[in-house]
Amino acid sequence: MAILILLNQVDPTLLESKLKQFDDCPEVRIYPDCGNKDDIECVIVWKHDEGVLNDFPNLKLIASYGAGVENILSDPSLPEGVPITRFVDDTLSDQMAEFVLAAILNHRLHLTYYREQQAASHWRPMDFLTGKNVTILGLGELGSTTAKLLDVNGYSVSGWSRSEKNIDNVKSYYGDDQLNASVAGADIVVCLLPLTPTTKHVLNADLFAAMKKGAFLINVGRGDHLKEDDLMNALSSEHLSGALLDVFATEPLPTDHPFWRHPKIHVTPHISSPTDKGRVARQILDNYNRIKSGADPLNQVDPKRSY
Amino acid sequence: MAILILLNQVDPTLLESKLKQFDDCPEVRIYPDCGNKDDIECVIVWKHDEGVLNDFPNLKLIASYGAGVENILSDPSLPEGVPITRFVDDTLSDQMAEFVLAAILNHRLHLTYYREQQAASHWRPMDFLTGKNVTILGLGELGSTTAKLLDVNGYSVSGWSRSEKNIDNVKSYYGDDQLNASVAGADIVVCLLPLTPTTKHVLNADLFAAMKKGAFLINVGRGDHLKEDDLMNALSSEHLSGALLDVFATEPLPTDHPFWRHPKIHVTPHISSPTDKGRVARQILDNYNRIKSGADPLNQVDPKRSY
Repeated sequence: MAILILLNQVDPTLLESKLKQFDDCPEVRIYPDCGNKDDIECVIVWKHDEGVLNDFPNLKLIASYGAGVENILSDPSLPEGVPITRFVDDTLSDQMAEFVLAAILNHRLHLTYYREQQAASHWRPMDFLTGKNVTILGLGELGSTTAKLLDVNGYSVSGWSRSEKNIDNVKSYYGDDQLNASVAGADIVVCLLPLTPTTKHVLNADLFAAMKKGAFLINVGRGDHLKEDDLMNALSSEHLSGALLDVFATEPLPTDHPFWRHPKIHVTPHISSPTDKGRVARQILDNYNRIKSGADPLNQVDPKRSY
Repeated sequence: MAILILLNQVDPTLLESKLKQFDDCPEVRIYPDCGNKDDIECVIVWKHDEGVLNDFPNLKLIASYGAGVENILSDPSLPEGVPITRFVDDTLSDQMAEFVLAAILNHRLHLTYYREQQAASHWRPMDFLTGKNVTILGLGELGSTTAKLLDVNGYSVSGWSRSEKNIDNVKSYYGDDQLNASVAGADIVVCLLPLTPTTKHVLNADLFAAMKKGAFLINVGRGDHLKEDDLMNALSSEHLSGALLDVFATEPLPTDHPFWRHPKIHVTPHISSPTDKGRVARQILDNYNRIKSGADPLNQVDPKRSY
């Protein structure tokens, strides 16, 4: 009986050491050194290669290393009937909310601009931007925690999601019909959607045209939510005033990518919701134990809804 | 009867135009064009030259252009018995609180660092700093509003002031004896004191030594609170991890000042609590009207306490 770590673009050794710190941890193997594949009952997954999860006949749990599961569900040949879980972490939601608040304050108070001015010894005070209407696309754990933090900080918050949500002081828009209306009044639009086939490239020219002139975009969802060329056009035409992007279609963002040097784009290296290795290890072991004792795992994903 | 605008280092014309938009505004003159000095009943002051306020025999009100009055009280030859007022503005307190929160988030989330990394196309994610103990030196309107905002954002807030304060969830230190103790546990120290002869250079080597290694300093009080050489030493020795400075002994900060190019100092051009010209104009006119009708002005300063 063993747990297999199968992480692409992420160093597996830190997670391995965290798992092994727990007394109830079974043997841990790191892909591609699987040993006897019959032993593997749980795979911890990030961006695995298509079809590979069918190699383990006794697999009982597919556990996502992060909050998102699009990297798992995009595989059309997943083994049938094996539960898929994702990592749910209050701390992660809190960090996301703090990151979004920081991004908004940086924009409204021009702090990034002053840092650039400092390099040239330029003293150029500007007024705070007063617009505090924020629309959050996606009101799951991350989105709703972010909405609440912005609310207590005096922002007028709207949100858009697949179905209607009821969060105090947050105006709920829902369904495809209301997407454009949800962003029409926003000074700042934040993408916190799960990545699914229907949300891919949701940040596109149509949505930007529905936003008001001078609005600011924050993408902390996934890189594939954004149609990059459409953003470049919306910035060139000065319809949008700028963007902070923390996630990218390819990470790390390639050195020659134009986002790095764009004066209106602030790039951060996917720091908005880092996976805490200790907590993800504990949560996956708990779910493994639940399954071994015949219980359902927590934070299970419904593949039909894609999150 | 006339109001005189006497502002050094600040453009007077915007305030003049705001004053003149109000129907109850008397004649406005701009120093040094005082006309008949007998006409001047109110002077709006910022960094005036010593003794000059004695030139107006019918002066009834000395109104500070900003929240601070040290620039007025430092004049030993103020006319006797003329009330001095300062500008009190809730919006100003809110902006100060937002600025301090933004400065703290930038520090904890390394956003300034990422902006520098972006210029070199460097992808170097770092964990958020988790330390959320903040000590605010000064718990007046600005300090207490800031303390409350930090509290709702999950910070553990302590404050130091001349006398004991009672603010929910804010640990109160007071008096000279408790100054060093107030900063001992802080990850971040914020200076929001009024500038008085006793608070000048309060941010000095003694205080830095009382702070824990790696603490971060934010000065949004006045430039003269800081002993500049002591900060440079505390940063060189790596006892303090960095500083955000928004106020300086000389403003604008001279182009050749070493703060501009110090890698651990973030310079912002005194933006933390900009005076809103429309609101300061209205508040001064209200006080002028009160005095003309025999009432005491609001927001009067007690020269003995220096604020």
